[in-house]
Amino acid sequence: MSKTSAAGQTGTPPDRARLQALHQQLSEHLDNGIIPFWLARAEDPDDGGYRTSFDEQGNAMPMPAKYLNSQCRLLWWFSHLRRHRPAVTAAAALARRGFEFILEHFWDDSHGGWFWTVKRDGARLDDGKIVYGQSFAIYALAEYYLATGDDRGLEYASATFDLLQKYCADTRHGGYYENLNVDWTPEAPGFAAGDRKGLDTHMHLMESFTVLYAASRQPLHRRKLIEITELILSRMIDPQSGCGLNQFDLAWRPLPAIAIKRTWNAERFGERPADPTETTSYGHNVELAWLLRRAVETAGEPFGPYLAVHRRLIDHAVAHGVDWTHGGLYRDGLRATGQALILEKEFWQNAEVLVGFLDGYEVHGDPRHLDAFENVWNFARQHFVVAGVGEWRILTDREGRPLDTNLGNAWKVSYHTGRAVSECVDRLSRLGRLG
Amino acid sequence: MSKTSAAGQTGTPPDRARLQALHQQLSEHLDNGIIPFWLARAEDPDDGGYRTSFDEQGNAMPMPAKYLNSQCRLLWWFSHLRRHRPAVTAAAALARRGFEFILEHFWDDSHGGWFWTVKRDGARLDDGKIVYGQSFAIYALAEYYLATGDDRGLEYASATFDLLQKYCADTRHGGYYENLNVDWTPEAPGFAAGDRKGLDTHMHLMESFTVLYAASRQPLHRRKLIEITELILSRMIDPQSGCGLNQFDLAWRPLPAIAIKRTWNAERFGERPADPTETTSYGHNVELAWLLRRAVETAGEPFGPYLAVHRRLIDHAVAHGVDWTHGGLYRDGLRATGQALILEKEFWQNAEVLVGFLDGYEVHGDPRHLDAFENVWNFARQHFVVAGVGEWRILTDREGRPLDTNLGNAWKVSYHTGRAVSECVDRLSRLGRLG
Repeated sequence: MSKTSAAGQTGTPPDRARLQALHQQLSEHLDNGIIPFWLARAEDPDDGGYRTSFDEQGNAMPMPAKYLNSQCRLLWWFSHLRRHRPAVTAAAALARRGFEFILEHFWDDSHGGWFWTVKRDGARLDDGKIVYGQSFAIYALAEYYLATGDDRGLEYASATFDLLQKYCADTRHGGYYENLNVDWTPEAPGFAAGDRKGLDTHMHLMESFTVLYAASRQPLHRRKLIEITELILSRMIDPQSGCGLNQFDLAWRPLPAIAIKRTWNAERFGERPADPTETTSYGHNVELAWLLRRAVETAGEPFGPYLAVHRRLIDHAVAHGVDWTHGGLYRDGLRATGQALILEKEFWQNAEVLVGFLDGYEVHGDPRHLDAFENVWNFARQHFVVAGVGEWRILTDREGRPLDTNLGNAWKVSYHTGRAVSECVDRLSRLGRLG
Repeated sequence: MSKTSAAGQTGTPPDRARLQALHQQLSEHLDNGIIPFWLARAEDPDDGGYRTSFDEQGNAMPMPAKYLNSQCRLLWWFSHLRRHRPAVTAAAALARRGFEFILEHFWDDSHGGWFWTVKRDGARLDDGKIVYGQSFAIYALAEYYLATGDDRGLEYASATFDLLQKYCADTRHGGYYENLNVDWTPEAPGFAAGDRKGLDTHMHLMESFTVLYAASRQPLHRRKLIEITELILSRMIDPQSGCGLNQFDLAWRPLPAIAIKRTWNAERFGERPADPTETTSYGHNVELAWLLRRAVETAGEPFGPYLAVHRRLIDHAVAHGVDWTHGGLYRDGLRATGQALILEKEFWQNAEVLVGFLDGYEVHGDPRHLDAFENVWNFARQHFVVAGVGEWRILTDREGRPLDTNLGNAWKVSYHTGRAVSECVDRLSRLGRLG
């Protein structure tokens, strides 16, 4: 049981049968859905590395490019299985083959760091140095090292971290430049966002530094993990509402969010003017909450000082982001009032809040967090998960009618869905023993 | 003539004869005083590297330790002479021998970076990683490379810069941690100042990044030079008075200055409580002004946006720091009113304002800056410079009576005095042609 756990310590004992039923449902989905889905399909038989694009029936689709991001997410996934689901014996070999592919085709021998995209056969396509992607390389490589003991994983994760410190740390304002060219000069301002910082990239850096420190136990990795954690909390959380801001200029002045060339929404919407409204992402906020707890506990810091911010992030989504009528989680809302603006349901936010709501229930013992978890899980079972195939659709409308039915694309693999279900299975297992 | 020069463009033409007389006096002091003083004495005949400690007659004194700081300052000095005074043919060999000594005895093969002190024979004494000293290593090594073409100079300067980015950049608040242990973990808080930042170290980083960029022309070195320049101006200048602040916590909250274990005043005063008054150093302020101009021009940025801050730094010292009765420059004053508090005259402040006052005269064309220059120079000639020996005493009382008569110690070599006189000779040469 976690040292910051409070569930079971309140007046109302948790409903053991309910928790065990949920544990059973999510375990079944993990073991018979997500895990076999990717075991059977991820390896690219022609060119090496991983395939990421699959239609609603799970058939491989054309895949003109391989993205650093999703190659690393699958490398992380098979490494995670190797560490946490040792019965999945095929995972180690799949991790190793993915590792060899990114090392051969994504690593930049001239300037260091990882290219953003390559063609399916590995030929260089977009050689930009995108910190979002560098962060997923650290995340995957550190997990790969922990899973397999292959020293090259930690070596390249550490080298990537060093490059971020050298080329991306902003010594004027703190934090990191996020979008750079192949030679680590900052990208152009505007759409390419060389002049922006955001919660998205910085949160994922916190996530990857957490695993890097768990792998290396280097004081420097711990120090930078704490720095970025404190930076996020001091700069990127709205003190009024307790929810997350999105984008900033380099000096941390909040900016209306734009689509960003290689990462944030650009492949869905293209370049477009900034949205004049000040929005927040419920899913990001709750993802931040549980990643924050993991970061603080991995750093060996007491969680007490973080309880309030953790709870406010979760409570905001429970109050405003959960659709208590149709189930599931809305995409985005207004920061000032919390009111939901975009009522569609997207896979990753619905996956991440599963972990965060259970995290909230475990830490704060608030039964509303468990209710919110169950609400979103029931919506996901019914509307996201494709029965008999095992993965989640990308997007539905408010009532759950499919809008984007593919099960994998250049971005979506098993990182959000599989990780969330795996994290929830562990939490439900702990909680189910407490009834 | 400098592109930011304004002298000679005002209504009052500069007094050509006066400028030429000053040029003559300072050239004489440089060529027959400071240069031969160190050429004859700096090399340590017994143990290699440089001797730094000399009494008022220029006799070598016992020297239990060699400091990174002063070894690098003399390496810088001989490299500077090699570049700018090519007639001084002995300088190149003296630079090279100093370089070999620091490389052999100060470089940390285990963790990278430079130890703080070694015994006279090179044995390790204090292996702390003090950013003030790392900065002087960069300054000296980049100048050494520019002077001699020895690639190792730029290689070690760049490696030191990289270590600062990796271990010392503060990604939460911007700027750099200043005091670290041998393994680059931060030093203890308080007297060892692991929890402080200051104008002193950051100004010297700006100075060393300036020469590093001039040597490497690497975009990254230019970017970090601009970042630290903007950081200093936004965080370390008091917007009310226009003068510099001294010390800060890591989050840039100004703190009353304390003596700091290895650097700031500790060897004069030891550990003692913080001075409750809010002081400013006139000498530092004016040194910052001319180093700022050098930084901005080296980065290839227009100086227009910096004119006002440059002028306020200098005007503050002209108004409050110059002793118009006895001559010379006071040590420290009150930030709020400018009033001088410590009326002693110390060598380095008096040397640095010579450059800065001439810089002010050249840029702003204000005859008060030239008057201030002449005032301090006349005081220095009379009370600091030891006639017939060629170097400056360390400290006098307000009227110029000697308080510390040594000409060199573990800190004081030719960096402030020689550099100031050399910089002034160049400026006076330019200005004297304008009359």
